[in-house]
Amino acid sequence: MFNTFGNLLRITTFGESHGKAIGAIIDGLPSGIPVEAAYIQAELNRRRPGQSEITSPRDEKDRVEILSGVYEGLSTGTPIALIIRNIDVRSEDYLEIKNMYRPGHADYTYDTKYGIRDWRGSGRASGRETAARVAAGAIAKKFLETRGIRIYGYTLEIGAVRAEIIKLGEIEKNPVRCPDPGAAEKMVNLIKKLRDEGDSIGGIIEARVIGCPAGLGEPVFDKLEARIAQAIMSIGGVRGFEVGAGFGCSRMKGSEFNDIPVYKDGKIGFATNHAGGIVGGISTGEDILIRVAVRPPASISKPQKIVNKSGKSTVIEIKGRHDPCIVPRVVPVVEAMLSLVIADFVLLQRRFQDLDKKS
Amino acid sequence: MFNTFGNLLRITTFGESHGKAIGAIIDGLPSGIPVEAAYIQAELNRRRPGQSEITSPRDEKDRVEILSGVYEGLSTGTPIALIIRNIDVRSEDYLEIKNMYRPGHADYTYDTKYGIRDWRGSGRASGRETAARVAAGAIAKKFLETRGIRIYGYTLEIGAVRAEIIKLGEIEKNPVRCPDPGAAEKMVNLIKKLRDEGDSIGGIIEARVIGCPAGLGEPVFDKLEARIAQAIMSIGGVRGFEVGAGFGCSRMKGSEFNDIPVYKDGKIGFATNHAGGIVGGISTGEDILIRVAVRPPASISKPQKIVNKSGKSTVIEIKGRHDPCIVPRVVPVVEAMLSLVIADFVLLQRRFQDLDKKS
Amino acid sequence: MFNTFGNLLRITTFGESHGKAIGAIIDGLPSGIPVEAAYIQAELNRRRPGQSEITSPRDEKDRVEILSGVYEGLSTGTPIALIIRNIDVRSEDYLEIKNMYRPGHADYTYDTKYGIRDWRGSGRASGRETAARVAAGAIAKKFLETRGIRIYGYTLEIGAVRAEIIKLGEIEKNPVRCPDPGAAEKMVNLIKKLRDEGDSIGGIIEARVIGCPAGLGEPVFDKLEARIAQAIMSIGGVRGFEVGAGFGCSRMKGSEFNDIPVYKDGKIGFATNHAGGIVGGISTGEDILIRVAVRPPASISKPQKIVNKSGKSTVIEIKGRHDPCIVPRVVPVVEAMLSLVIADFVLLQRRFQDLDKKS
Amino acid sequence: MFNTFGNLLRITTFGESHGKAIGAIIDGLPSGIPVEAAYIQAELNRRRPGQSEITSPRDEKDRVEILSGVYEGLSTGTPIALIIRNIDVRSEDYLEIKNMYRPGHADYTYDTKYGIRDWRGSGRASGRETAARVAAGAIAKKFLETRGIRIYGYTLEIGAVRAEIIKLGEIEKNPVRCPDPGAAEKMVNLIKKLRDEGDSIGGIIEARVIGCPAGLGEPVFDKLEARIAQAIMSIGGVRGFEVGAGFGCSRMKGSEFNDIPVYKDGKIGFATNHAGGIVGGISTGEDILIRVAVRPPASISKPQKIVNKSGKSTVIEIKGRHDPCIVPRVVPVVEAMLSLVIADFVLLQRRFQDLDKKS
Repeated sequence: MFNTFGNLLRITTFGESHGKAIGAIIDGLPSGIPVEAAYIQAELNRRRPGQSEITSPRDEKDRVEILSGVYEGLSTGTPIALIIRNIDVRSEDYLEIKNMYRPGHADYTYDTKYGIRDWRGSGRASGRETAARVAAGAIAKKFLETRGIRIYGYTLEIGAVRAEIIKLGEIEKNPVRCPDPGAAEKMVNLIKKLRDEGDSIGGIIEARVIGCPAGLGEPVFDKLEARIAQAIMSIGGVRGFEVGAGFGCSRMKGSEFNDIPVYKDGKIGFATNHAGGIVGGISTGEDILIRVAVRPPASISKPQKIVNKSGKSTVIEIKGRHDPCIVPRVVPVVEAMLSLVIADFVLLQRRFQDLDKKS
Repeated sequence: MFNTFGNLLRITTFGESHGKAIGAIIDGLPSGIPVEAAYIQAELNRRRPGQSEITSPRDEKDRVEILSGVYEGLSTGTPIALIIRNIDVRSEDYLEIKNMYRPGHADYTYDTKYGIRDWRGSGRASGRETAARVAAGAIAKKFLETRGIRIYGYTLEIGAVRAEIIKLGEIEKNPVRCPDPGAAEKMVNLIKKLRDEGDSIGGIIEARVIGCPAGLGEPVFDKLEARIAQAIMSIGGVRGFEVGAGFGCSRMKGSEFNDIPVYKDGKIGFATNHAGGIVGGISTGEDILIRVAVRPPASISKPQKIVNKSGKSTVIEIKGRHDPCIVPRVVPVVEAMLSLVIADFVLLQRRFQDLDKKS
Repeated sequence: MFNTFGNLLRITTFGESHGKAIGAIIDGLPSGIPVEAAYIQAELNRRRPGQSEITSPRDEKDRVEILSGVYEGLSTGTPIALIIRNIDVRSEDYLEIKNMYRPGHADYTYDTKYGIRDWRGSGRASGRETAARVAAGAIAKKFLETRGIRIYGYTLEIGAVRAEIIKLGEIEKNPVRCPDPGAAEKMVNLIKKLRDEGDSIGGIIEARVIGCPAGLGEPVFDKLEARIAQAIMSIGGVRGFEVGAGFGCSRMKGSEFNDIPVYKDGKIGFATNHAGGIVGGISTGEDILIRVAVRPPASISKPQKIVNKSGKSTVIEIKGRHDPCIVPRVVPVVEAMLSLVIADFVLLQRRFQDLDKKS
Repeated sequence: MFNTFGNLLRITTFGESHGKAIGAIIDGLPSGIPVEAAYIQAELNRRRPGQSEITSPRDEKDRVEILSGVYEGLSTGTPIALIIRNIDVRSEDYLEIKNMYRPGHADYTYDTKYGIRDWRGSGRASGRETAARVAAGAIAKKFLETRGIRIYGYTLEIGAVRAEIIKLGEIEKNPVRCPDPGAAEKMVNLIKKLRDEGDSIGGIIEARVIGCPAGLGEPVFDKLEARIAQAIMSIGGVRGFEVGAGFGCSRMKGSEFNDIPVYKDGKIGFATNHAGGIVGGISTGEDILIRVAVRPPASISKPQKIVNKSGKSTVIEIKGRHDPCIVPRVVPVVEAMLSLVIADFVLLQRRFQDLDKKS
């Protein structure tokens, strides 16, 4: 509820962009799981700004500190608290917008809901909030890795540029995290062009879970795709979610869409994977495949004509150091949320232990 | 968790397609809210099969019985239990598939997860499970109506046929629940054609919440769109979800996507609604607008070559009385889930009562 | 929350005393567990009125019907719905108290909280609500039995009469469920005497969990004793709870209270069990031992001078068919709640599966 | 679940005794509530060791730092993170017990449950964990105070010494927090005597909620007394809980126990308060009255003969700086937990807003 997510493995995040710190508590992780600051830090570095020429030049150091729940490099089964201090904040950049509702930002809705708002750096509504998710997700990701489950996110589209080939090994070799080197170059150029125009651009992320066992998911309301959808749609800037054939299924016939059961490697598998690895809310053992629509960043330097809080017309030009495209930086956030969901369902499935013993 | 959904207003559903009954418990509804069997029944009738020539000819009577929580037509604040007995079941239709995994169905995943499966009529994985949601949702829908919040779902696309105009008054006048009478006719013809071919077809549902106050939603994990996404993606057959501009936002520039704050009717509103009525996870007061991708039904009479449980090749022809397109019948389910989510957030927002008194 | 209890194994109950039915949903139970109506019925029979000369002569048949979640005698992993129809209700017995707040009853608090009240047979506040708990608890109890965990409740005290010896085999042989045959006789006589005086009497229940493995409990807020306390204190009429030495510990020295670790049967055990089988919120492997204070029933035929709803003085004489002592009938309710809690923690502990494999 | 407690107002705590820090996240608090470090600090000072001659001489500074959720002294409606760094830890004091299970401590159960244990200063099982509760509870306590609800805890008994008079104004004037100055002196002497003998002693805390409105509590599983019981029994060292007449009710007749409705101050009240302010799980408007049994501290310097981890007999003498009686320091913890529960139910009751408007 609210700032807590998960059933058995639960994450709670806190913190505002220009407050003292952001952080996360991970509760429910079994004991004996390796938890290392270095691994978490590496994931954080993938999300932080300033990592390439196409991201915001803000230099958020994002140093994670583990406060509890880990002893001699292993989880103890007690809650793991992670904090990241906020440094290099320039609250004065935001003074001007204190009495304005920036277009596309959550200023108006936060003000309406809470009647009070920490306007500095967008407060809790800042994309910075996702750093806590990435830190917590790194722990889940590592847990899954030791069980042979791997999670890959990548940029599928930026504007109208689309990756035509998916080479997982290419993803981290270019600043847009695109698995198609040719498309990556075009994406970089498109982003630079829009930055120079004082504008921004959206895109699509694709992610897959490889090595996911069949049987994960808890119908009917915690169907695997339903929980993944909540996890992903809770990321700031995400406006759409689909699994497998997704929206494309609306134009397919049943005879085209149905994945036919076949015999593969001595067990039942499926000839195709239009279902994206999830049927009836439960994983099939095939790769889980999702796509995520990411909006263009709201903060653009182009002048925009708006009304201020008191209803007077004015013109706003967003200052500060903003990303012209957040898609590449959202990739590790999508991976983190996917990791947390899958790890949660792995643990939930363990209540069927008797079943394991029978087979 | 599992078969319970919601934070303050919680629904728990139970029941298998060919078991004794399906039903729902609604807990957390304030006292004094009108709850009438007739209203619930009317919503159930919109979902049930046999309502038109293009739906399954199964004649599920779907009579709802209210067991508790209502006294003299009003909710008492205690849990409301609803049950619907299963009648007109023909379990023998399913005998043949007891040892097969039907393509596109959850037979394989249920078997793998639970090690045991009520194969009759697809058991818990049957679309029939959604009748309990519609019954419970009707109560939430009524609650919202008395507060001026209205929820409309309709068929936007069937296959490649798309509604070009949205006339809310037309929706219930045609069997496909399409707000565009011209498109409706084409949709009906398309569905009939596929039925005659022993095939099926998918589509897209659009839904909107009208009169929704600003301020609903609980960042960061219970952002309004995140919880709606979970609710909608938990409906059997749904494969994609988007809000506002949705996947279209990926090709938009920030200067195009941003909804500009303007003065309307003496208060702040927005010039456009690309955000679909939700910014930062909180409602803006504009209409909430979502779209939902629905897959083609898995049960088709066309022969399909599969392997059976023991891996032997065979051919399956699905018998029984199935829908060639479930989109029109999913419309009331989408409305029900939307109603439950919005009502939950209306109640959650009441904890800010002090705020109300200040203003 | 509200009418749902449990973490992984969750029970939701519904129903009013004179409504159509009461019932329970059990969600989260693994598949493949035997669930039989006969077993549930046997537990219900232990709770129902009319079972002996010292309980209410109301003849609640309490026939349980299983609506879902069970196939061929085994749980399927989907929610199990149980209902018990209300019959032999005499709502007219309650007409007189519609405008009065009966002393010791929840009439006033329900009215104040909800503003509306189903006054017939005390509605949701009736002890009848616990029948749903007993039905659900029977399933958990059976699940635990197949794992060698047994739960016994019994009457320790009625008024000032106390069981001096604990013979588990005697419990079900007398109508007060007392493990000491001599004390049982005195208890029966005391209850009869008070019934004849138009009065009622309280008592103390003791319960123990035998064969409980070490390691159950989830510090810090779901410590085993904390969750058991919630479960037990949520039973109508319970006013006190203690574990092990309980309130007696307040007068003990550390050197007396500490249970000394010793070697027993080839493993570590404890010389004494003042801790009642729970240390640091986690089971020790010794018997879990709790005691429960039960108030005298509020419904007495003796005249009581009260004010009515409008503040006028009046005299009330409670009619209807009431128990002069509910302790013996609360025993199976305590067992049911204990069973649900322990089963929940058994399932929660399974997330430490890796640990099991290591050892 | 686990380290999170509450329904709408939720607290999550983390941290081990000798780890880097302990802390708490409070989520769900409405915006606009005053949150001041000074107030929290004052409550922490009531709990910390070294505050008087009869508590442990450890000098835990317990400086609270607010990391998020507060802006210009007011809550913003986002999660409030509090941390308290651990300083003055002497882990070497615990080296010797690394391979032993100290009598009365959670060493054995933590080891059995988790297979790994942070043995330094008892880790998560340390009483230090309650400092996080006191910090979080202070915020809830302040919230309640501004609504006229006050919470008082005090020492009722230490060993066989019992407070005979209850003067709330005396509580903070003596080191044992006893409302009876004469008894206080005897308690101090008793504690000193036991300390000098290398032993320890238990006691009983009583607490009352004054000014609590009628209508709080959520039957049937979140009955007010049930949730308070969970909250209180989750405090380390608590072994018993009762409300109102409590265990005493077991010897009372119905005609003695029933609180008779009377007219007081122009509204309905009760002639007596044996119910302790809660009937049917809902507050009556009378004072809520609970009692809490606290065990003698496990750490005593007196030699104890035990077996070590490998089953060999040995003698243990607990070193370190320990309390001979924790009752006075548990008083603010009881108040904190009570505050959190009551504040949670105040917010939950707000969903009945329509009701308020009617009356």
